[in-house]
Amino acid sequence: MLHRALMLVAVMVCAAPVLAAETASEQVTTFTLDNGMEAVVIEDHRAPAVVHMVWYRAGSADEPAGVSGIAHFLEHLMFKGTDTIAPGEFSQIVAANGGTDNAFTSFDYTGYFQRVAADRLELMMQMEADRMVNLTLTQDEVRTEREVILEERNQRVENDPGALFNEQRRAALYMNHRYGVPIIGWRHEIESLDLQDALDFYADNYAPNNAILVVAGDVDPADVKRLAQTYYGPIPADPTIVPRQRPQEPPQLSERRMVMNDPRVAQPYIIRTYLAPERDPGAQEKAAALVMLAEVLGGGQTSVLNRKLQFETQTVVYTSAFYSGTSLDDTGFGLVAVPADGVSLQEAEEALDKAVAEFITEGVDAAQLDRIKFQMRAQQIYARDNVDRLARRYGGALASGLTVADVQAWPDILQAVTEADIIAAAKEIFDRKKSVTGWLMGAEQEGTL
Amino acid sequence: MLHRALMLVAVMVCAAPVLAAETASEQVTTFTLDNGMEAVVIEDHRAPAVVHMVWYRAGSADEPAGVSGIAHFLEHLMFKGTDTIAPGEFSQIVAANGGTDNAFTSFDYTGYFQRVAADRLELMMQMEADRMVNLTLTQDEVRTEREVILEERNQRVENDPGALFNEQRRAALYMNHRYGVPIIGWRHEIESLDLQDALDFYADNYAPNNAILVVAGDVDPADVKRLAQTYYGPIPADPTIVPRQRPQEPPQLSERRMVMNDPRVAQPYIIRTYLAPERDPGAQEKAAALVMLAEVLGGGQTSVLNRKLQFETQTVVYTSAFYSGTSLDDTGFGLVAVPADGVSLQEAEEALDKAVAEFITEGVDAAQLDRIKFQMRAQQIYARDNVDRLARRYGGALASGLTVADVQAWPDILQAVTEADIIAAAKEIFDRKKSVTGWLMGAEQEGTL
Repeated sequence: MLHRALMLVAVMVCAAPVLAAETASEQVTTFTLDNGMEAVVIEDHRAPAVVHMVWYRAGSADEPAGVSGIAHFLEHLMFKGTDTIAPGEFSQIVAANGGTDNAFTSFDYTGYFQRVAADRLELMMQMEADRMVNLTLTQDEVRTEREVILEERNQRVENDPGALFNEQRRAALYMNHRYGVPIIGWRHEIESLDLQDALDFYADNYAPNNAILVVAGDVDPADVKRLAQTYYGPIPADPTIVPRQRPQEPPQLSERRMVMNDPRVAQPYIIRTYLAPERDPGAQEKAAALVMLAEVLGGGQTSVLNRKLQFETQTVVYTSAFYSGTSLDDTGFGLVAVPADGVSLQEAEEALDKAVAEFITEGVDAAQLDRIKFQMRAQQIYARDNVDRLARRYGGALASGLTVADVQAWPDILQAVTEADIIAAAKEIFDRKKSVTGWLMGAEQEGTL
Repeated sequence: MLHRALMLVAVMVCAAPVLAAETASEQVTTFTLDNGMEAVVIEDHRAPAVVHMVWYRAGSADEPAGVSGIAHFLEHLMFKGTDTIAPGEFSQIVAANGGTDNAFTSFDYTGYFQRVAADRLELMMQMEADRMVNLTLTQDEVRTEREVILEERNQRVENDPGALFNEQRRAALYMNHRYGVPIIGWRHEIESLDLQDALDFYADNYAPNNAILVVAGDVDPADVKRLAQTYYGPIPADPTIVPRQRPQEPPQLSERRMVMNDPRVAQPYIIRTYLAPERDPGAQEKAAALVMLAEVLGGGQTSVLNRKLQFETQTVVYTSAFYSGTSLDDTGFGLVAVPADGVSLQEAEEALDKAVAEFITEGVDAAQLDRIKFQMRAQQIYARDNVDRLARRYGGALASGLTVADVQAWPDILQAVTEADIIAAAKEIFDRKKSVTGWLMGAEQEGTL
């Protein structure tokens, strides 16, 4: 990590103009089928491979109340059978064709993908289109998969105090929006998810007019369109699907603080998350400033927080800032501080606040911002070598309410962020009324606040 | 208030046995119509009057996400017209018959009632049965009433920092349950409530098998049954209505704290609310202990908190404890402290915690508990003189998942609570992990925590 950063700095002086000249976007073609299914084709002819993805505009934040986890549960169940594919056979066929497949669920979407040789794309489409409408599930499969998911929750959440802490903080950050409910679901609700819940979520959300096809790799867009028309085209649109309008946050009037004690915690830390605007179609400037703010404050060894808290004062052993702007609704901007030995959470938090306040007064270091912009530009270019990552970038953005034009404008919008934009974003975002500050600690007796 | 308390104490010694002998329940008859509508008749023949109520098992916590306030909005709209009653005519007819009428919405129910001369009961039933199914609404009525409700919200909430504070704390107390959403609704959601939302909530919830009829006063139960069969009986049950199963809370693992600053606040104060069990059918003992705990800790001049914080140490100018056990799902147990001049919120909170800790160690004063039980018994008897209050007690309990038997057992269950039960309840309930502590303060600069 450090090595990569140094390397980038070393090449910067001469390389920057070259990078700047290479900012033309990847070769992307889009089309929409008559049934409303959108498609993005990203051409990359360096290897005879393809990634085929279908993204549904249906994530955990689109679940009805009381059935948390059903989006993710259905994602698992989509690997059961259809009328023509036996249970579990889907992935076997992909593997038999030399490919790999998987799926993922987030707050805003659920996605399925396969990486295969380019000449296997048709088979993938045929199978993916099949399970868009023909999924068959049995009570037994649901029962068994529920146990798998409960065990997944054990592994990922119950056994990890930091993950539990995240869930508790998210629930406090969102007063009304379903982003406050974990993607995997609350345990007590997962326990009662049943076949009908899965079928309902499937019927309500899985349809071509709620899906985005992303094909990236060694393909001809015209061929992809023809195949998509053949396999996805005959599936009728679901007229009940309308653009998502989720419950939004009311005014947040009151700073929230929480202490979580867990005997498994060896290293206490602080996370504060502020409610933050997301990338909106045609209006990504504020989100871009927040991306830059997170980088300037907490991105890597030369960040402001690292310099002030780790190098200059040895207050923390780790600090960072995070922001993820690709989101349908309001997202979070976070600050993290892990205090050094002998430093209390209170002292670390005060130092963190002081560092942020100083930063707002001192302003952004122009050289640091240049470095960050250069690195981002470089990452954008490197990313073009990774067709999976490109496919994910387009799919994730489109499933979060953005357009192809937004994705393509994003790098330049990031480059256009000024020092003043960043400070303005900081002044706006750091409103304690819209924040949750959490302390994660070990033994109970430390838990004073 | 003080006068009443002293008077009760003065009569206690000789009066207690007499009171104890009068604990037989009021004269209550129940029946259920074929369409599932439950009915409770409470006889009180001292005056030729009657209160007629219909309670729907549909409160704000039964609303779909995103349309907060629709239960209350529909309550307002129920005073518009039907096929046979012109808009606004309902209340005019009640008044023309010498009666009064009104309605109320809570988390667990919406209720409508009229107080009239006993011989007007039939007319009330006819009209109430009519609007159970025949409500007609126009876009104009909905638009106008929405403005009324927004103004109601202005008056009751936006102009009252304490009410805003309550909303913010409730949202933090409930991580998953809809009790975290205000009954009147979030302002931004009220603003978009429309005719269809109202009609949907009406269609989904207003049906005889989701309603409880309560008639109290100078009536013969057989006459009431006959009238109910005549007017409510023909309305078909809605087969889609099933017992309510709402999203429940996940484990609460982390104490939450909030500070709200509002320049309109002249007197800062602290409220801490703990998540608390409610009265459950056939299992009201724990709730009874919590009622007693609230009384012992914070009920009136001689309460533990008042003695320790106001009289002995002059730390606070006001303190109380509150608990409302009549609730379908988990409710709250609250502690309030208003610091004296020169005492900080931090100091007041520490004193409050110290007082509670001392109380748990010292135990319950037997004489105080006897006084409270005597007062409660007296209130139960006095309440029998208030037919409205009796009707509300039965209706509220039944609409919150309890039975007539639970209502009638409740006074004796309260009397049976022991000192040990109260301390056990205190030890269980005072789990900071399941609590929200709020500080309401004036100017921003005081807002350190």
